Amino acid sequence: MPNFTQTITLRTSGRRTYEISSDIAAALRQSGLQAGTVTVFCQHTSCSLVIMENADPSARADLHYFMDKLVPEDDPNYTHTLEGPDDMTSHIKMALTRTSEVIPFVDGRLCLGTWQGVFLWEHRDMQHSRRIVLSFNGE
Amino acid sequence: MPNFTQTITLRTSGRRTYEISSDIAAALRQSGLQAGTVTVFCQHTSCSLVIMENADPSARADLHYFMDKLVPEDDPNYTHTLEGPDDMTSHIKMALTRTSEVIPFVDGRLCLGTWQGVFLWEHRDMQHSRRIVLSFNGE
Amino acid sequence: MPNFTQTITLRTSGRRTYEISSDIAAALRQSGLQAGTVTVFCQHTSCSLVIMENADPSARADLHYFMDKLVPEDDPNYTHTLEGPDDMTSHIKMALTRTSEVIPFVDGRLCLGTWQGVFLWEHRDMQHSRRIVLSFNGE
Repeated sequence: MPNFTQTITLRTSGRRTYEISSDIAAALRQSGLQAGTVTVFCQHTSCSLVIMENADPSARADLHYFMDKLVPEDDPNYTHTLEGPDDMTSHIKMALTRTSEVIPFVDGRLCLGTWQGVFLWEHRDMQHSRRIVLSFNGE
Repeated sequence: MPNFTQTITLRTSGRRTYEISSDIAAALRQSGLQAGTVTVFCQHTSCSLVIMENADPSARADLHYFMDKLVPEDDPNYTHTLEGPDDMTSHIKMALTRTSEVIPFVDGRLCLGTWQGVFLWEHRDMQHSRRIVLSFNGE
Repeated sequence: MPNFTQTITLRTSGRRTYEISSDIAAALRQSGLQAGTVTVFCQHTSCSLVIMENADPSARADLHYFMDKLVPEDDPNYTHTLEGPDDMTSHIKMALTRTSEVIPFVDGRLCLGTWQGVFLWEHRDMQHSRRIVLSFNGE
Protein backbone atom coordinates (compact mmCIF):
# COMPACT_ATOMS: atom_id res chain seq x y z
CA MET A 1 0.00 0.00 0.00
CA PRO A 2 1.89 3.04 -1.23
CA ASN A 3 1.67 6.52 0.27
CA PHE A 4 1.18 9.61 -1.86
CA THR A 5 1.61 13.04 -0.28
CA GLN A 6 0.91 16.45 -1.78
CA THR A 7 0.80 19.94 -0.25
CA ILE A 8 -1.64 22.52 -1.52
CA THR A 9 -1.29 26.24 -0.84
CA LEU A 10 -4.25 28.56 -0.53
CA ARG A 11 -4.21 32.36 -0.50
CA THR A 12 -6.91 33.60 1.86
CA SER A 13 -8.35 37.12 2.06
CA GLY A 14 -10.15 37.41 5.34
CA ARG A 15 -12.27 35.30 7.65
CA ARG A 16 -14.60 32.84 5.91
CA THR A 17 -14.68 29.30 4.54
CA TYR A 18 -12.87 28.39 1.30
CA GLU A 19 -13.81 25.15 -0.46
CA ILE A 20 -10.92 22.78 -1.25
CA SER A 21 -12.92 19.67 -2.30
CA SER A 22 -11.83 19.85 -5.94
CA ASP A 23 -8.16 20.23 -4.95
CA ILE A 24 -8.41 17.01 -2.94
CA ALA A 25 -10.17 15.20 -5.79
CA ALA A 26 -7.47 16.36 -8.24
CA ALA A 27 -4.69 15.07 -5.99
CA LEU A 28 -6.51 11.73 -5.65
CA ARG A 29 -6.55 11.37 -9.42
CA GLN A 30 -2.81 12.14 -9.53
CA SER A 31 -2.12 9.50 -6.88
CA GLY A 32 -3.56 6.75 -9.04
CA LEU A 33 -4.90 5.06 -5.89
CA GLN A 34 -8.31 3.37 -5.96
CA ALA A 35 -9.27 2.56 -2.35
CA GLY A 36 -8.10 3.97 0.96
CA THR A 37 -8.18 7.23 2.92
CA VAL A 38 -6.87 10.75 2.46
CA THR A 39 -5.77 12.69 5.51
CA VAL A 40 -6.34 16.43 5.09
CA PHE A 41 -4.06 18.27 7.52
CA CYS A 42 -4.02 22.03 8.15
CA GLN A 43 -0.52 23.24 9.14
CA HIS A 44 -1.70 26.32 11.05
CA THR A 45 -3.24 27.27 14.40
CA SER A 46 -5.32 30.29 13.35
CA CYS A 47 -7.32 28.58 10.61
CA SER A 48 -8.97 25.17 10.57
CA LEU A 49 -10.91 22.61 8.57
CA VAL A 50 -14.61 21.86 8.45
CA ILE A 51 -16.79 19.63 6.30
CA MET A 52 -20.00 21.55 5.66
CA GLU A 53 -22.99 21.80 3.35
CA ASN A 54 -21.78 23.28 0.06
CA ALA A 55 -25.07 23.77 -1.78
CA ASP A 56 -26.70 26.80 -0.16
CA PRO A 57 -24.18 29.54 0.85
CA SER A 58 -26.57 30.72 3.59
CA ALA A 59 -25.58 27.71 5.71
CA ARG A 60 -21.94 28.82 5.73
CA ALA A 61 -22.90 32.46 6.34
CA ASP A 62 -24.91 31.43 9.42
CA LEU A 63 -22.04 29.22 10.60
CA HIS A 64 -19.62 32.16 10.35
CA TYR A 65 -22.10 34.31 12.27
CA PHE A 66 -22.52 31.72 15.03
CA MET A 67 -18.78 31.25 15.52
CA ASP A 68 -18.16 35.01 15.76
CA LYS A 69 -20.91 35.19 18.39
CA LEU A 70 -19.59 32.17 20.32
CA VAL A 71 -16.04 33.54 20.46
CA PRO A 72 -16.38 37.31 20.97
CA GLU A 73 -13.35 39.53 20.40
CA ASP A 74 -14.17 42.06 23.10
CA ASP A 75 -13.35 39.81 26.07
CA PRO A 76 -10.86 41.88 28.11
CA ASN A 77 -9.41 38.74 29.74
CA TYR A 78 -7.48 37.59 26.67
CA THR A 79 -3.74 38.20 26.99
CA HIS A 80 -2.57 36.73 23.66
CA THR A 81 -3.58 39.77 21.58
CA LEU A 82 -0.29 41.05 20.14
CA GLU A 83 -1.49 40.64 16.55
CA GLY A 84 -4.87 42.27 17.14
CA PRO A 85 -8.37 41.38 18.35
CA ASP A 86 -8.62 38.41 15.94
CA ASP A 87 -5.39 36.84 17.26
CA MET A 88 -6.52 34.79 20.26
CA THR A 89 -10.04 34.25 18.95
CA SER A 90 -8.57 32.63 15.82
CA HIS A 91 -6.78 30.03 17.95
CA ILE A 92 -9.96 29.31 19.92
CA LYS A 93 -12.08 28.91 16.78
CA MET A 94 -9.45 26.55 15.39
CA ALA A 95 -9.50 24.44 18.57
CA LEU A 96 -13.31 24.17 18.41
CA THR A 97 -13.24 22.86 14.83
CA ARG A 98 -10.68 20.57 13.16
CA THR A 99 -7.03 20.42 12.21
CA SER A 100 -7.15 16.97 10.55
CA GLU A 101 -10.00 15.37 8.64
CA VAL A 102 -9.82 11.88 7.10
CA ILE A 103 -11.96 10.97 4.09
CA PRO A 104 -12.29 7.48 2.58
CA PHE A 105 -12.17 6.90 -1.17
CA VAL A 106 -13.36 3.93 -3.23
CA ASP A 107 -13.02 3.28 -6.99
CA GLY A 108 -10.79 6.34 -7.17
CA ARG A 109 -13.53 8.69 -5.88
CA LEU A 110 -13.88 10.52 -2.56
CA CYS A 111 -16.72 9.14 -0.38
CA LEU A 112 -18.17 12.58 0.35
CA GLY A 113 -21.92 12.74 0.91
CA THR A 114 -24.16 14.52 -1.58
CA TRP A 115 -24.09 17.85 0.26
CA GLN A 116 -20.61 17.69 1.79
CA GLY A 117 -17.80 20.02 0.85
CA VAL A 118 -14.38 20.28 2.51
CA PHE A 119 -13.44 23.80 3.57
CA LEU A 120 -10.47 25.66 4.96
CA TRP A 121 -11.89 28.01 7.59
CA GLU A 122 -9.77 31.17 7.75
CA HIS A 123 -10.19 32.92 11.11
CA ARG A 124 -7.83 35.87 10.50
CA ASP A 125 -8.78 39.13 8.79
CA MET A 126 -5.48 39.81 7.03
CA GLN A 127 -4.37 37.94 3.89
CA HIS A 128 -2.55 34.69 4.58
CA SER A 129 -0.89 31.90 2.61
CA ARG A 130 -2.13 28.56 4.02
CA ARG A 131 -0.61 25.10 3.54
CA ILE A 132 -2.70 21.93 3.65
CA VAL A 133 -1.02 18.53 3.49
CA LEU A 134 -2.89 15.71 1.71
CA SER A 135 -1.61 12.24 2.59
CA PHE A 136 -3.19 9.31 0.71
CA ASN A 137 -2.89 5.78 2.10
CA GLY A 138 -4.40 3.13 -0.12
CA GLU A 139 -4.01 0.64 -2.89
CA MET B 1 -1.44 -3.34 3.32
CA PRO B 2 -4.90 -3.94 1.95
CA ASN B 3 -7.88 -1.63 2.35
CA PHE B 4 -11.32 -2.87 3.40
CA THR B 5 -14.29 -0.51 3.13
CA GLN B 6 -17.83 -1.03 4.35
CA THR B 7 -20.80 1.35 4.62
CA ILE B 8 -23.29 1.00 7.44
CA THR B 9 -26.74 2.56 7.40
CA LEU B 10 -28.52 3.74 10.52
CA ARG B 11 -32.17 4.73 10.85
CA THR B 12 -32.44 7.57 13.35
CA SER B 13 -35.60 8.79 15.09
CA GLY B 14 -34.85 12.22 16.49
CA ARG B 15 -31.99 14.10 18.06
CA ARG B 16 -29.77 12.02 20.34
CA THR B 17 -26.67 9.81 20.24
CA TYR B 18 -26.81 6.28 18.78
CA GLU B 19 -23.99 3.86 19.59
CA ILE B 20 -22.27 2.22 16.61
CA SER B 21 -19.28 0.61 18.41
CA SER B 22 -20.46 -2.96 17.79
CA ASP B 23 -21.06 -2.26 14.08
CA ILE B 24 -17.45 -1.11 13.75
CA ALA B 25 -16.17 -4.15 15.66
CA ALA B 26 -18.22 -6.47 13.42
CA ALA B 27 -16.80 -4.89 10.26
CA LEU B 28 -13.28 -5.23 11.69
CA ARG B 29 -13.83 -8.97 12.15
CA GLN B 30 -15.06 -9.22 8.55
CA SER B 31 -11.98 -7.39 7.29
CA GLY B 32 -9.68 -10.04 8.68
CA LEU B 33 -7.12 -7.32 9.44
CA GLN B 34 -5.07 -7.49 12.64
CA ALA B 35 -3.29 -4.12 13.07
CA GLY B 36 -4.02 -0.69 11.64
CA THR B 37 -6.66 2.03 11.79
CA VAL B 38 -10.32 2.36 10.92
CA THR B 39 -11.61 5.68 9.65
CA VAL B 40 -15.23 6.28 10.65
CA PHE B 41 -16.71 8.87 8.27
CA CYS B 42 -20.18 10.42 8.53
CA GLN B 43 -21.55 11.34 5.07
CA HIS B 44 -23.90 14.08 6.31
CA THR B 45 -23.80 17.70 7.50
CA SER B 46 -26.70 17.65 9.98
CA CYS B 47 -25.46 14.77 12.14
CA SER B 48 -21.97 14.03 13.43
CA LEU B 49 -19.74 11.63 15.34
CA VAL B 50 -18.58 11.69 18.94
CA ILE B 51 -16.66 9.26 21.14
CA MET B 52 -18.26 9.45 24.58
CA GLU B 53 -18.67 7.56 27.84
CA ASN B 54 -21.04 4.66 27.19
CA ALA B 55 -21.52 3.33 30.74
CA ASP B 56 -23.83 5.81 32.47
CA PRO B 57 -26.55 7.23 30.13
CA SER B 58 -26.73 10.41 32.26
CA ALA B 59 -23.44 11.59 30.71
CA ARG B 60 -24.97 11.53 27.24
CA ALA B 61 -28.21 13.13 28.46
CA ASP B 62 -26.22 16.03 29.95
CA LEU B 63 -24.19 16.32 26.75
CA HIS B 64 -27.38 16.60 24.68
CA TYR B 65 -28.68 19.23 27.12
CA PHE B 66 -25.47 21.27 26.92
CA MET B 67 -25.39 21.26 23.12
CA ASP B 68 -29.02 22.39 22.85
CA LYS B 69 -28.19 25.22 25.26
CA LEU B 70 -24.99 26.20 23.41
CA VAL B 71 -26.74 26.34 20.02
CA PRO B 72 -30.20 27.81 20.68
CA GLU B 73 -32.86 27.54 17.98
CA ASP B 74 -34.55 30.86 18.70
CA ASP B 75 -31.77 33.08 17.32
CA PRO B 76 -33.59 35.34 14.81
CA ASN B 77 -30.38 35.96 12.86
CA TYR B 78 -30.24 32.52 11.23
CA THR B 79 -31.25 32.62 7.54
CA HIS B 80 -30.78 28.93 6.65
CA THR B 81 -34.07 27.80 8.21
CA LEU B 82 -36.08 26.43 5.26
CA GLU B 83 -36.39 22.98 6.87
CA GLY B 84 -37.38 24.29 10.29
CA PRO B 85 -35.78 25.56 13.49
CA ASP B 86 -33.46 22.50 13.75
CA ASP B 87 -32.05 23.07 10.24
CA MET B 88 -29.21 25.55 10.77
CA THR B 89 -28.56 24.50 14.36
CA SER B 90 -27.93 20.92 13.13
CA HIS B 91 -25.16 22.15 10.83
CA ILE B 92 -23.60 24.16 13.66
CA LYS B 93 -23.68 21.24 16.10
CA MET B 94 -22.08 19.05 13.44
CA ALA B 95 -19.28 21.60 12.89
CA LEU B 96 -18.57 21.74 16.64
CA THR B 97 -18.19 17.94 16.88
CA ARG B 98 -16.71 15.51 14.34
CA THR B 99 -17.27 14.21 10.82
CA SER B 100 -14.35 11.75 10.82
CA GLU B 101 -12.88 9.78 13.70
CA VAL B 102 -9.92 7.40 13.37
CA ILE B 103 -9.49 4.47 15.76
CA PRO B 104 -6.44 2.17 15.92
CA PHE B 105 -6.81 -1.61 16.21
CA VAL B 106 -4.31 -4.24 17.36
CA ASP B 107 -4.63 -8.05 17.43
CA GLY B 108 -7.91 -7.66 15.56
CA ARG B 109 -9.51 -5.56 18.33
CA LEU B 110 -10.41 -1.86 18.45
CA CYS B 111 -8.19 0.15 20.83
CA LEU B 112 -11.14 1.87 22.53
CA GLY B 113 -10.68 2.80 26.19
CA THR B 114 -12.71 1.07 28.89
CA TRP B 115 -15.47 3.67 28.91
CA GLN B 116 -15.39 4.77 25.29
CA GLY B 117 -18.23 4.20 22.86
CA VAL B 118 -18.52 5.55 19.30
CA PHE B 119 -21.78 7.36 18.61
CA LEU B 120 -23.60 8.89 15.69
CA TRP B 121 -25.06 12.15 16.97
CA GLU B 122 -28.32 12.91 15.18
CA HIS B 123 -29.14 16.62 15.35
CA ARG B 124 -32.43 16.56 13.40
CA ASP B 125 -35.86 15.83 14.88
CA MET B 126 -37.36 13.96 11.90
CA GLN B 127 -36.46 10.38 11.01
CA HIS B 128 -33.40 10.03 8.80
CA SER B 129 -31.40 7.28 7.15
CA ARG B 130 -27.69 7.91 7.85
CA ARG B 131 -24.68 6.43 6.06
CA ILE B 132 -21.34 5.94 7.79
CA VAL B 133 -18.33 4.75 5.80
CA LEU B 134 -15.80 2.51 7.59
CA SER B 135 -12.40 2.36 5.86
CA PHE B 136 -9.84 -0.05 7.36
CA ASN B 137 -6.14 0.38 6.54
CA GLY B 138 -3.93 -2.28 8.05
CA GLU B 139 -2.25 -5.63 7.76
CA MET C 1 2.80 -0.91 4.04
CA PRO C 2 3.47 -2.06 7.59
CA ASN C 3 1.72 -0.81 10.68
CA PHE C 4 3.58 0.22 13.83
CA THR C 5 1.64 0.84 17.04
CA GLN C 6 2.87 2.23 20.33
CA THR C 7 1.04 3.38 23.46
CA ILE C 8 2.37 6.25 25.53
CA THR C 9 1.30 6.94 29.10
CA LEU C 10 1.13 10.41 30.57
CA ARG C 11 0.74 11.33 34.23
CA THR C 12 -1.37 14.49 34.48
CA SER C 13 -1.71 16.78 37.50
CA GLY C 14 -4.78 18.92 36.94
CA ARG C 15 -6.57 20.64 34.09
CA ARG C 16 -4.30 22.09 31.42
CA THR C 17 -2.60 21.14 28.15
CA TYR C 18 0.46 18.84 28.11
CA GLU C 19 2.63 18.74 24.99
CA ILE C 20 3.26 15.29 23.49
CA SER C 21 4.85 16.33 20.16
CA SER C 22 8.28 14.94 21.05
CA ASP C 23 6.80 11.60 22.16
CA ILE C 24 5.16 11.22 18.76
CA ALA C 25 8.38 12.18 16.96
CA ALA C 26 10.34 9.63 19.03
CA ALA C 27 7.87 6.85 18.17
CA LEU C 28 8.08 7.79 14.50
CA ARG C 29 11.87 7.35 14.60
CA GLN C 30 11.42 3.94 16.24
CA SER C 31 8.95 2.88 13.55
CA GLY C 32 11.55 3.35 10.84
CA LEU C 33 8.79 4.52 8.48
CA GLN C 34 9.44 7.37 6.05
CA ALA C 35 6.07 8.45 4.58
CA GLY C 36 2.52 8.01 5.79
CA THR C 37 0.28 9.11 8.68
CA VAL C 38 0.23 8.70 12.43
CA THR C 39 -3.11 8.44 14.19
CA VAL C 40 -2.98 9.90 17.70
CA PHE C 41 -5.86 8.40 19.72
CA CYS C 42 -6.84 9.38 23.27
CA GLN C 43 -8.38 6.42 25.15
CA HIS C 44 -10.41 8.55 27.59
CA THR C 45 -13.62 10.60 27.71
CA SER C 46 -12.59 13.26 30.26
CA CYS C 47 -9.46 14.48 28.47
CA SER C 48 -8.90 15.19 24.79
CA LEU C 49 -6.42 16.21 22.11
CA VAL C 50 -5.76 19.57 20.51
CA ILE C 51 -3.15 20.90 18.10
CA MET C 52 -2.29 24.40 19.27
CA GLU C 53 0.35 27.11 19.07
CA ASN C 54 3.31 25.98 21.19
CA ALA C 55 5.50 29.10 21.10
CA ASP C 56 3.83 31.60 23.43
CA PRO C 57 2.26 29.97 26.54
CA SER C 58 -0.27 32.84 26.76
CA ALA C 59 -2.20 31.33 23.84
CA ARG C 60 -2.79 28.12 25.77
CA ALA C 61 -3.62 30.03 28.98
CA ASP C 62 -6.30 32.00 27.12
CA LEU C 63 -7.63 28.80 25.55
CA HIS C 64 -7.97 27.19 28.99
CA TYR C 65 -9.75 30.33 30.21
CA PHE C 66 -12.17 30.35 27.28
CA MET C 67 -13.10 26.68 27.68
CA ASP C 68 -13.77 27.06 31.41
CA LYS C 69 -16.02 30.02 30.58
CA LEU C 70 -17.82 28.18 27.75
CA VAL C 71 -18.53 25.13 29.91
CA PRO C 72 -19.35 26.47 33.39
CA GLU C 73 -19.39 24.04 36.32
CA ASP C 74 -22.21 25.75 38.23
CA ASP C 75 -25.03 24.69 35.90
CA PRO C 76 -27.56 23.03 38.24
CA ASN C 77 -29.06 21.00 35.36
CA TYR C 78 -26.15 18.54 35.10
CA THR C 79 -27.00 15.13 36.56
CA HIS C 80 -23.71 13.29 35.84
CA THR C 81 -21.83 14.83 38.77
CA LEU C 82 -20.96 11.83 40.97
CA GLU C 83 -17.22 12.53 40.74
CA GLY C 84 -17.53 16.26 41.43
CA PRO C 85 -18.19 19.51 39.57
CA ASP C 86 -15.48 18.76 36.96
CA ASP C 87 -17.07 15.38 36.05
CA MET C 88 -19.69 16.26 33.43
CA THR C 89 -17.89 19.38 32.24
CA SER C 90 -14.83 17.23 31.41
CA HIS C 91 -16.91 15.06 29.08
CA ILE C 92 -18.38 18.14 27.39
CA LYS C 93 -14.97 19.76 26.87
CA MET C 94 -13.71 16.49 25.41
CA ALA C 95 -16.65 16.33 22.98
CA LEU C 96 -15.98 19.91 21.81
CA THR C 97 -12.32 19.15 21.01
CA ARG C 98 -10.78 15.94 19.63
CA THR C 99 -10.31 12.28 20.49
CA SER C 100 -8.32 11.36 17.36
CA GLU C 101 -5.92 13.48 15.35
CA VAL C 102 -4.09 12.30 12.23
CA ILE C 103 -0.75 13.82 11.22
CA PRO C 104 1.10 13.10 7.96
CA PHE C 105 4.86 12.45 7.89
CA VAL C 106 7.33 12.66 5.02
CA ASP C 107 11.06 11.80 4.94
CA GLY C 108 10.68 10.40 8.45
CA ARG C 109 9.50 13.74 9.89
CA LEU C 110 6.10 14.89 11.15
CA CYS C 111 4.45 17.48 8.87
CA LEU C 112 3.59 19.83 11.74
CA GLY C 113 3.51 23.54 10.92
CA THR C 114 6.08 25.90 12.41
CA TRP C 115 3.94 26.85 15.39
CA GLN C 116 2.00 23.62 15.88
CA GLY C 117 2.34 21.41 18.93
CA VAL C 118 0.23 18.36 19.80
CA PHE C 119 -1.27 18.46 23.28
CA LEU C 120 -3.20 16.21 25.61
CA TRP C 121 -5.84 18.42 27.21
CA GLU C 122 -6.59 17.20 30.73
CA HIS C 123 -10.01 18.39 31.89
CA ARG C 124 -9.99 16.82 35.37
CA ASP C 125 -8.49 18.38 38.50
CA MET C 126 -7.23 15.19 40.16
CA GLN C 127 -4.10 13.33 39.03
CA HIS C 128 -4.71 10.83 36.25
CA SER C 129 -2.71 8.34 34.20
CA ARG C 130 -3.64 8.82 30.53
CA ARG C 131 -3.02 6.44 27.63
CA ILE C 132 -2.55 7.65 24.06
CA VAL C 133 -2.28 5.15 21.21
CA LEU C 134 -0.02 6.05 18.27
CA SER C 135 -0.71 4.03 15.12
CA PHE C 136 1.62 4.61 12.16
CA ASN C 137 0.56 3.56 8.65
CA GLY C 138 3.20 4.13 6.02
CA GLU C 139 6.13 2.86 4.06
